[in-house]
Amino acid sequence: MPQQSSNSADAQLPSEAIRLRIRAGLHDGHTSGLAPGKLQCNLAILPEAYALDFLRFCQRNPKPCPLVGVGETGDPMLPTLGRNIDIRTDVPRYRVFKRGQLAEEVTDITSHWSQDLVTVALGCSFTFENALIRADIPVRHIEMGLNVPMFRTNIDLAAAGPFGGQMVVTMRPLPQDLIQDAIAISGRFPQAHGAPIAIGDPAAIGITDLDQPDYGDAVEIKPREVPVFWACGVTPQNVLRAAQLPICITHAPGHMLITDVAEDAETTLYQDTTN
Amino acid sequence: MPQQSSNSADAQLPSEAIRLRIRAGLHDGHTSGLAPGKLQCNLAILPEAYALDFLRFCQRNPKPCPLVGVGETGDPMLPTLGRNIDIRTDVPRYRVFKRGQLAEEVTDITSHWSQDLVTVALGCSFTFENALIRADIPVRHIEMGLNVPMFRTNIDLAAAGPFGGQMVVTMRPLPQDLIQDAIAISGRFPQAHGAPIAIGDPAAIGITDLDQPDYGDAVEIKPREVPVFWACGVTPQNVLRAAQLPICITHAPGHMLITDVAEDAETTLYQDTTN
Repeated sequence: MPQQSSNSADAQLPSEAIRLRIRAGLHDGHTSGLAPGKLQCNLAILPEAYALDFLRFCQRNPKPCPLVGVGETGDPMLPTLGRNIDIRTDVPRYRVFKRGQLAEEVTDITSHWSQDLVTVALGCSFTFENALIRADIPVRHIEMGLNVPMFRTNIDLAAAGPFGGQMVVTMRPLPQDLIQDAIAISGRFPQAHGAPIAIGDPAAIGITDLDQPDYGDAVEIKPREVPVFWACGVTPQNVLRAAQLPICITHAPGHMLITDVAEDAETTLYQDTTN
Repeated sequence: MPQQSSNSADAQLPSEAIRLRIRAGLHDGHTSGLAPGKLQCNLAILPEAYALDFLRFCQRNPKPCPLVGVGETGDPMLPTLGRNIDIRTDVPRYRVFKRGQLAEEVTDITSHWSQDLVTVALGCSFTFENALIRADIPVRHIEMGLNVPMFRTNIDLAAAGPFGGQMVVTMRPLPQDLIQDAIAISGRFPQAHGAPIAIGDPAAIGITDLDQPDYGDAVEIKPREVPVFWACGVTPQNVLRAAQLPICITHAPGHMLITDVAEDAETTLYQDTTN
């Protein structure tokens, strides 16, 4: 999640208009700061034969894998998440994995689509970060124009079929007096990882060095700040890779699916009010 | 959901102890008022071939069908919902449907269990009713010792595979000045139908006569009270029957699965802290 300034032109557009620009190949960059107030999603596309186990996995691990939308088998449209969403073209950048190996990074998966694929959309941390910023709670990596630091942990996930492993977390340092507010605010967004899963000692969750994140960028932790850890959407990506499916497709990091669902809606279901 | 007094002896027992009594055939009555503070669930057991569509259906209709647990195919144990839960024996009373027709009402489904069945547990209204009562918001049918009145509506559900239809709702009459509190309190329990789906005019959701509920009992609506409608767990039962699966098994109304998950937990996942 680089700084938001690079998306300033598209930031004024409504969610559907941005998707149309993405579909037309006019926007293939990250989606941070776009369509403010609209839910953005992590993406997992996998063969139907694995979909039941993957949904069970998400249900059992709702903090890293908050399930917000599931497509029909073979149907690339996602009507429950917005108007005219075609998952083959409407995400800026995709990663195609075969047997767990990155095969391609592409801006269109039309040629990879098939009648046995199921799309699963999972909430993402942009949602609660936006809410923290609105509440004047600083988000360090955004202040620094960096990617959020992400760490593998020793927190076991609840397995389902071939899916399992350990949780990946993001870290945001906060002064002690803001932590309760950050818990309360992020806790209002269970569709976007919810409240923190750990606060304080990194070693307690198997992290040895906060200056050496496994993904993303290290950020400054100021004196008297405490590291606060949230479940991270990289978790399902790692779990999918480790399952070595014949094919699976995810978004590229930071290049999310932009939905028409309000971030603060009670349910993550798009209600078309225009027709 | 009859009056709670008939469960007074078992009401002092912890959730696991009550399940053991149910398993032993010592309690086959309703579960209202039992294991206070613990999540109770609607139950749907169906063949794996239909489970992916049913999970998609629940994801798309989270107000009537709040998904709180899913078992492994063929495995009657539900470790994510509590200690040593055996779904074949630990619910007081079950209904077995074949091709949509009620075949049997039984207290044990061991003889019906098979290696292709999947258990799905859905939240139930006991959870938010308990919270309303704690906040001194009157719940009329409990005051009157009756079943909650339930009505078919014209609210279309989002379909998935063979599953679809219209929502069933419960109605609780409230004085105007308590409605905002009732919305806020029930809204805190998305795992248990959440906030109301309609308030006021029954005709707006296709209900013609509040004195003639489709299920349950009619309750008194006092002068200046407003009918408040919540999504109801009978919805998935009707949807399952209409789908005419070769077999499906539900709980009998009011005879719920008692879990070890706290009603107010952030996620509906049991954490075993005893070993």
